[in-house]
Amino acid sequence: METQARGGYNGKILRVNLSSNVISEETIDELFCRKYLGGAGFIIYLLWKELRPGTNPLSHDNKLVLALGPLTGIPLPGSGRNCIGAKSPLTEGITKSEVGGFWGAELKRAGYDAVIVEGKADKPVYLWIHDGEVSIRDASILWGRNTKETQQSIRTELGDNRIQVAMIGPGGENLVRYACIMNGLYDAAGRGGLGAVMGSKNLKALAVRGRKAPTIVERTPVKELREWLLANMQLVQAFHEFGTGAAMRGFEATGNLPIRNFRDGLFPGVKMIDAQAIKDTIRVGMDACFGCPVRCKKKVQVSEPYPVDPAYGGPEYETLAALGSNCGIDDLKAIAKGNELCGAYSLDTISVGNVIAFAMECFENGLLSVKDTNSIEARFGNAEAMLKLIELIARREGIGDLLAEGTYRAAQKIGKGAAEFAMQVKGLEAGLHEPRSKPGLGLGFMVNPHGADHCCNLHDNLYVVEGQMKELRALGILEPVPVEDISPRKVALFKLIQLNRIVFDSLVLCQFLPYSLEQLADVTAAVTGWDTGVMEQLKVAERILTMARLFNIREGFTAADDMLPQRFFQPKTDGVLADKPLDPTKLEKAKSYYYAMMGWDTSTGIPTPEKLEELDIT
Amino acid sequence: METQARGGYNGKILRVNLSSNVISEETIDELFCRKYLGGAGFIIYLLWKELRPGTNPLSHDNKLVLALGPLTGIPLPGSGRNCIGAKSPLTEGITKSEVGGFWGAELKRAGYDAVIVEGKADKPVYLWIHDGEVSIRDASILWGRNTKETQQSIRTELGDNRIQVAMIGPGGENLVRYACIMNGLYDAAGRGGLGAVMGSKNLKALAVRGRKAPTIVERTPVKELREWLLANMQLVQAFHEFGTGAAMRGFEATGNLPIRNFRDGLFPGVKMIDAQAIKDTIRVGMDACFGCPVRCKKKVQVSEPYPVDPAYGGPEYETLAALGSNCGIDDLKAIAKGNELCGAYSLDTISVGNVIAFAMECFENGLLSVKDTNSIEARFGNAEAMLKLIELIARREGIGDLLAEGTYRAAQKIGKGAAEFAMQVKGLEAGLHEPRSKPGLGLGFMVNPHGADHCCNLHDNLYVVEGQMKELRALGILEPVPVEDISPRKVALFKLIQLNRIVFDSLVLCQFLPYSLEQLADVTAAVTGWDTGVMEQLKVAERILTMARLFNIREGFTAADDMLPQRFFQPKTDGVLADKPLDPTKLEKAKSYYYAMMGWDTSTGIPTPEKLEELDIT
Repeated sequence: METQARGGYNGKILRVNLSSNVISEETIDELFCRKYLGGAGFIIYLLWKELRPGTNPLSHDNKLVLALGPLTGIPLPGSGRNCIGAKSPLTEGITKSEVGGFWGAELKRAGYDAVIVEGKADKPVYLWIHDGEVSIRDASILWGRNTKETQQSIRTELGDNRIQVAMIGPGGENLVRYACIMNGLYDAAGRGGLGAVMGSKNLKALAVRGRKAPTIVERTPVKELREWLLANMQLVQAFHEFGTGAAMRGFEATGNLPIRNFRDGLFPGVKMIDAQAIKDTIRVGMDACFGCPVRCKKKVQVSEPYPVDPAYGGPEYETLAALGSNCGIDDLKAIAKGNELCGAYSLDTISVGNVIAFAMECFENGLLSVKDTNSIEARFGNAEAMLKLIELIARREGIGDLLAEGTYRAAQKIGKGAAEFAMQVKGLEAGLHEPRSKPGLGLGFMVNPHGADHCCNLHDNLYVVEGQMKELRALGILEPVPVEDISPRKVALFKLIQLNRIVFDSLVLCQFLPYSLEQLADVTAAVTGWDTGVMEQLKVAERILTMARLFNIREGFTAADDMLPQRFFQPKTDGVLADKPLDPTKLEKAKSYYYAMMGWDTSTGIPTPEKLEELDIT
Repeated sequence: METQARGGYNGKILRVNLSSNVISEETIDELFCRKYLGGAGFIIYLLWKELRPGTNPLSHDNKLVLALGPLTGIPLPGSGRNCIGAKSPLTEGITKSEVGGFWGAELKRAGYDAVIVEGKADKPVYLWIHDGEVSIRDASILWGRNTKETQQSIRTELGDNRIQVAMIGPGGENLVRYACIMNGLYDAAGRGGLGAVMGSKNLKALAVRGRKAPTIVERTPVKELREWLLANMQLVQAFHEFGTGAAMRGFEATGNLPIRNFRDGLFPGVKMIDAQAIKDTIRVGMDACFGCPVRCKKKVQVSEPYPVDPAYGGPEYETLAALGSNCGIDDLKAIAKGNELCGAYSLDTISVGNVIAFAMECFENGLLSVKDTNSIEARFGNAEAMLKLIELIARREGIGDLLAEGTYRAAQKIGKGAAEFAMQVKGLEAGLHEPRSKPGLGLGFMVNPHGADHCCNLHDNLYVVEGQMKELRALGILEPVPVEDISPRKVALFKLIQLNRIVFDSLVLCQFLPYSLEQLADVTAAVTGWDTGVMEQLKVAERILTMARLFNIREGFTAADDMLPQRFFQPKTDGVLADKPLDPTKLEKAKSYYYAMMGWDTSTGIPTPEKLEELDIT
């Protein structure tokens, strides 16, 4: 394929088949890189092209794809991440999840831009990727171990403490449908059950080490953007000082905080569990991802009533709300312990918190009893119950085996109206933000290809106040769009930001960093040598999102799957949203207009043949 | 209305009612300016808001709007222009036309950004606008005079030879439906019959003089863009050396040159009438619009067989093809004389050439005879006939009265299949480029709000070769789109360029200058102080184009009016397009996808309510 771009940028892909033990390398050309960027774009393209329809996500036919972007590993804050995707065991649609830490930057230095894992090993193995060399190694002695033990064991075995490890704990091994993949001990590729896919392949870990610096065509703009961020650290000051979760008290006041399975509106205990409380009590330090001055990652330590190991970092906002307010729990130490357990077992804290809240509401409503729950009194506010349930889920013991299936499947099995308590879209448990407080988030939950992802929150709540309008105006949004708005103006804004976020996920960069669309395009141009711009990047995102849609349609998804749990159309029991349910008619209209703006049929949500041709999707 | 922009930019509007003699001033606020820019945007907004549906274009109810843009009159090549619009006597839909020269820059210096002329004077008048003072003056002695006499008479009367005059000659006075408005003697606001609207108001001229320099928030970027152009004059070298029409021999070779009413494909005489031939024979100099180093305006002089006054400049490409090849005429002196007559009488050379070619084809096919034509042998190639017909049209004498109605109405009156020879869309005669050689131009002719405008040519033939791809790639068009392509990829490119051209027309800048979208946005930001960008400007253009659509729909236009003359679906008689007619099915598909991309109903072309809400059109 002749490329039209001048940089000569391309990508090197490592493909490992665990059934045949064949290891191979492929090069993707520059035009392809430009059309899909990397990360989420590469993953969605690959899964669309290579997976057979109807593939069982936990079979050897599924593929696990770990991908970097053109900016990965460069000296720029936010560049250490990677994206991971597969067909989801939770949604049976496409899923992808971004993850921080150091693994992404290390893989780049090892000489690869993506790893595709196919097939299934006969027995537990791990991959060892270092400076262009790749081996499949026995992991029998690692199987069953938690992540901390796994990481240390691999480093010891290979004799290098700087090896970066992406891995699963028992949650992934036991095919918990929302098991995550851990990059080291702080950072999770959390959503959609990627850890179960890894477990189903008998793949315990991917260990990487490399020394090859990424190519950068023009270094000055990278340096300037880094310096811009350093000169504007006030933009990320809250993250720097508290990490995530500093705004939780405000969330409770505005109704954005999910409380007791998204049912309630008041939770005075929020002040016991937010990032301020953590700083004042159990925090012992802050840590950072690769090359990042923000240092938003908490480390917490607890000695009693149970030890919490600071090696596992500390709970992020989503975890605080998931295991805390959404379970009615205001015991910070218990939440910290739950966070540690999820990290050790490789479980997605968001799904875990939702699943436990679901179980608690079922229990309180008599749909589950102590006979079902291994005698656990699974009531809202019972911190001990929450911790016990995590253990059972990770091991798939008793009630844990049911709950390991996720809220959607568990509700089907319980029956008796339990589905009403399953706060999920397409099978993915909802991120810990409240669509009733911002309907644009509701739209995001509805139309996001892999369900009610917590990242959808970033599609709605940015840029709605005057202080954030400067960039938006240059994009044609001349006036602030109120948070409660769900008119076509909001849909247009939503689409713009959603596309922008796909750009972040494909480059692959941390979404917490306040880079503008223009800064993203300019730094991409500098690194790759492409004459790229904002509009090109947004069109790339449109291509990627449309391809994800095609994947799901091929798996049988329809517009009816772009729906919200009924609870969001009912008022909260108390608090500021007690009389403010979402309006289903307005949401359906917004969805239809979103389809129109994407070039999809306004009723079915199926991309039109013309749109596919325009986007060069074949 | 609270504005969100920081520059404080606004606009001052002069409103003159010729029925009541009321002269008033209005200020438009910054947010409005940002949402519509100026020029075409302001005109279309105003006509949409203020004209009653069904207004007779030649009645006192029509309004003539002359508008500048935020860049008018700044020290930047291409900034001296203005836009003029009204309900068209030719199409009975919206029309607007851009015009060069010095009048626009002078109006800015006189303190205004737009002039709205309403009502109808009892007797001939002209407006005198100077440094914020405005008067309605008697023009009885000017009525019936040609433009040169009119301009000189006004300058003498007011005692200032630097007064700039926009005016009509007898063509406008006699309500020829395609009379133009002349800015001085070279530059015509040609299309759609704006001169007839002026004539119908008994308005002979608008004379302006001013000394107030335009406000520029930040001068350096303006200076830098000017210097960029001066350093890249090779981009406009052909215009500089030849003016327009240097490519005519190539046009004949590729089939783009209209020959004998768009019927034929071969015209060896092209070498006698192109810009090279002009340079070699009758050219006596080149001239420029306000502040422009390109100097693309030819001056020609002829002494026999008839004098051609160099004061009227010389024929542009459209005129050379309209009065030349499209009438089968290769007599350059006759074409130059025809150009002079059209300038003197204020007739649109494009419509004139089409109307005469139409008459010639009717004559040759027996639909008109010498009994109808004041004894003129109106055959293709008869230069004398062409010149006589221009005289008759301007005075509406004999056959001239019929032809002054334009091809659409004349064909209706003649009947007997004459409509087949009327090369018009929506009533506007086609610009002199051949859609069969580039179907994107066909789409442009179809969907352009005011019909088959020659400027549609700029929507298609740019950016299709590698050398022009740099900017396009940054906009997401990664690979060249072949000129013969009419797939969704072409439609997407067409929409992008069409919107870009609306930005040019609203800023108001000369479309011949090779400013990129980014340069346009940056210089707008510098002049106004707005934090604007390419995407904002394209959204503004979408708003403007959608509003023009609404205007036409209100007047009864439907998707069926977005059609091409049948001739374009038939092969040419000879030449390279002898076996290459346009495919009507492909064009209809392209039209439907264009509607989809614009957010209009794909069948009816009616903008969806959601799109209107998104664009804030109320």
